[in-house]
Amino acid sequence: MTAERLATYCGHMTALVSSPLAVVNAMISAIEAKDIDAAVALMSEAISYENMPMRPMTGRLVVAKVLQSFLTPAEEVDWQIVSEIERDDMVFNERLDRFKINGQWLELPIAGVFKVRDGKVVLWRDYFDMATYSDQLKKITNST
Amino acid sequence: MTAERLATYCGHMTALVSSPLAVVNAMISAIEAKDIDAAVALMSEAISYENMPMRPMTGRLVVAKVLQSFLTPAEEVDWQIVSEIERDDMVFNERLDRFKINGQWLELPIAGVFKVRDGKVVLWRDYFDMATYSDQLKKITNST
Repeated sequence: MTAERLATYCGHMTALVSSPLAVVNAMISAIEAKDIDAAVALMSEAISYENMPMRPMTGRLVVAKVLQSFLTPAEEVDWQIVSEIERDDMVFNERLDRFKINGQWLELPIAGVFKVRDGKVVLWRDYFDMATYSDQLKKITNST
Repeated sequence: MTAERLATYCGHMTALVSSPLAVVNAMISAIEAKDIDAAVALMSEAISYENMPMRPMTGRLVVAKVLQSFLTPAEEVDWQIVSEIERDDMVFNERLDRFKINGQWLELPIAGVFKVRDGKVVLWRDYFDMATYSDQLKKITNST
């Protein structure tokens, strides 16, 4: 392989690896593995993390703490991608975020909107129904 | 204009008018105008309308009734598109659905997912927090 072809190849591979959709999905895979360090490494330092029923949060240290708080009680984390679209620096996905807690699955339908710059997530906005989450959590917690 | 050029022009215009994004936005404009007939005309007869915190609904007659029920109390309807993406037959949008009721604005952040076939919406799925809607509605109703 000539230097020129190698440069072209590397350019393509870098673009592929750091495509906004690939970055978002790598972050989600890290969360499923409960690997918060790997997830946070794919976020910009000043990430805005917005769970729409709550106040927006800023900064990946804050996001790490929040992820820790809802991943810790889960024995298994399985975030299923229902559909996804990418355009320019934006990614939209529909997900079913599943958490196995005390042997029972909590399932939350979510629509996520992401902006990715330079291979890092700068915006993560999740639309979901808070009662769908809290009612299931209560039920699981009370039944054990 | 020659017949050939006219045919090309009409082909382009039809594609433009019936692009999934154009169909979804025309439906939203009809809803803002409280023109339910025009909105329903852009839906397939067997449309699946899914407000995620509720059970899915099927058929445009059902959707017309539901639209009627939440558009009737509103003096003004203003659905702001925050962002939107289209790919193939799918459209994703982020919206701020605003309803003016008794002189006060109720504002609901929503992420919508749509599938469009042959110029008609066959799937409309909205992700939002039900309490964000019902708490504001209660407040507006109690204050008057």
